[in-house]
Amino acid sequence: MRFARLAPPDQDRPAFFARLDGAAALVLDAPPWLGGKTTGEAVAWTDIDLACPVAPTKIVCVGRNYAAHAQELGNDVPVEPLLFLKPPSALIGPGQSIVLPPESQRVEHEAELGVIIGRRARAVRLEDALDHVLGYTCLGDITARDLQRKDVQFTRGKGFDTFCPVGPWIETALDPAALRVRAVVNSQVRQDGMTAQMIWGVPELVAYISRVMTLEPGDVIATGTPQGVGPIVSGDELVIDIAGATAEARGVGALRVSVVARGDGASGR
Amino acid sequence: MRFARLAPPDQDRPAFFARLDGAAALVLDAPPWLGGKTTGEAVAWTDIDLACPVAPTKIVCVGRNYAAHAQELGNDVPVEPLLFLKPPSALIGPGQSIVLPPESQRVEHEAELGVIIGRRARAVRLEDALDHVLGYTCLGDITARDLQRKDVQFTRGKGFDTFCPVGPWIETALDPAALRVRAVVNSQVRQDGMTAQMIWGVPELVAYISRVMTLEPGDVIATGTPQGVGPIVSGDELVIDIAGATAEARGVGALRVSVVARGDGASGR
Repeated sequence: MRFARLAPPDQDRPAFFARLDGAAALVLDAPPWLGGKTTGEAVAWTDIDLACPVAPTKIVCVGRNYAAHAQELGNDVPVEPLLFLKPPSALIGPGQSIVLPPESQRVEHEAELGVIIGRRARAVRLEDALDHVLGYTCLGDITARDLQRKDVQFTRGKGFDTFCPVGPWIETALDPAALRVRAVVNSQVRQDGMTAQMIWGVPELVAYISRVMTLEPGDVIATGTPQGVGPIVSGDELVIDIAGATAEARGVGALRVSVVARGDGASGR
Repeated sequence: MRFARLAPPDQDRPAFFARLDGAAALVLDAPPWLGGKTTGEAVAWTDIDLACPVAPTKIVCVGRNYAAHAQELGNDVPVEPLLFLKPPSALIGPGQSIVLPPESQRVEHEAELGVIIGRRARAVRLEDALDHVLGYTCLGDITARDLQRKDVQFTRGKGFDTFCPVGPWIETALDPAALRVRAVVNSQVRQDGMTAQMIWGVPELVAYISRVMTLEPGDVIATGTPQGVGPIVSGDELVIDIAGATAEARGVGALRVSVVARGDGASGR
C-alpha cells in the first residue's frame, strides 16, 4: 500500500493522510502508523498535493552504513552502527525547497532509504524487527559538510531547517534489501547504490536502535547513504529516487525538491 | 507561575496539565506552551502525582557551556555553542528511575537548567530571545561516558531510554542567570554551579539555536552542566536541585529520581 499526506493548495482543509489508489486518494481518519482507517471519502490527487508524509517524534540516522561512502569521506567502517539524530524541524516534503544557510560554504546531498516505524519497538529481536516497520520512503540527509567537520558533533551541520526532505509517500510492500537508491542533481546521477550493500540492513538497524531508544510509531530511521555525495547549490533540482533493484522488485518512487539560498524569498517550509 | 503535569496514581484519568497554586492544582485545558487556560477545576495534589512536565518535539542540548566542566573532561572551551540532541524517548519524570543499560560500564549525572520554549523561535534576535521562553525546569543529561567517548557522536551515550529526567515542574518567573544548579547523589553534593558561569546564557542559546533550527512551543533546551560530573550506580538517589543564586532570587525546586540496573524489575518509564 502507498500512504501519503495531502495538503491541496488553495483549499482550506488541513493536511490529511490518505491511501493512494491510482488517481484516487482514500482519506484516512488518522496517520497510518496510528492505525488510520479509510473514512469512505475518496478524492482525486496530483503531485502538487503531496506534503511530507511523516511526522516523527524522532529521526534516527545511521552514519557510514555503506563501506564505499565511509571511505570516500576518509572514515573507517565502524564496528557498530553510528547513530545520530536530525530534528523534526528539518523536515520538508515533495516540491519544497532546501534552504542553504549562510553559515555554510558547502552543503551536500545524501540520498537514503527512510524507514517508518509502525509499531513501538523496544529491544526487539532481529527476527521480529520488520514486524515493527510500516513502510519505506525517500529521504535526504542534507549536510553542511564544513560545519559537520568543524563541530565534530553532526547536529548543527545536519540539523538546519529544510535539511531533511522526505517523500513522496510511504510504500509498505517492498523488500528493503532489494532497492536501488539514487541522487540525481539537475538530471545527472550523483549517487547510485544498492541497499543490499548496506553494512547493517533494516532489521539489524531496527533491532540495534531499539536496544538504545524506544522507537515510537511514526518514527523515522535514515539508513545511511551510498557513495557519491557532493555539493548542491542554489537553483539545483535534487531528485532522490528509490527503485526496485531488479525489474521484479518494487521501489518507492522519486522525491523532487529544489535548492535555494536563504534570502531567495523561499521559505522552504 | 508553576506549571506541572499530573498523573495521579490509581486514577483512570489520563495525565493532565495544571497550574500549581500551593496545595491546589488548577487544571488546564492544554499544555501551557500551547496557551492552556484554567478550566475552573481545582484538585489537590501531592508529589507522587507529578509526571514529566514537558513533551517536546526536540531536546536541544549544549555541550561544554561551563568552562570548568569542559576542562574536567579534557576539552577546550568551544568558540560557538556545541549542539547535540537527546530523543524525547529518553524523558522520565519525578520519582521515576534512570535505568542503567548493560552496554555501559560508567553512567554519569549531569545536572542542568532546562529551558522550555513558549513561542516559536526562528532566527530570533538576542534582545527578543527571552520572549520565546515559557519557563525553566531541572534536567538531567544522563550520559554513558564510555559510550560517548567510544562513539564520538553523543547520540547513543546520551540517548538511552530514561536518560533525560525532567521536573518537578516548570517555573516561569525567574532570572535564568541567577540560579544555582546542584546534583546531589545519596545526599552528597556532587555538582554545584551558578548559571552566571555559563559561557553562553539563555538568551544567547535561544538566539543561536533558532538560527539553525526552528524551536517549537514546548521544545526543551538543556543548557550544559557545571563541573563535578561523576558516576551513578544502581540503588543511588539522584536529586537535581535548582535554587535561586541569592536569598532573593527565585529557583525551580528539586527533581528526585532513582537509579536501577536494567533487569531490576523497574521499567523506568
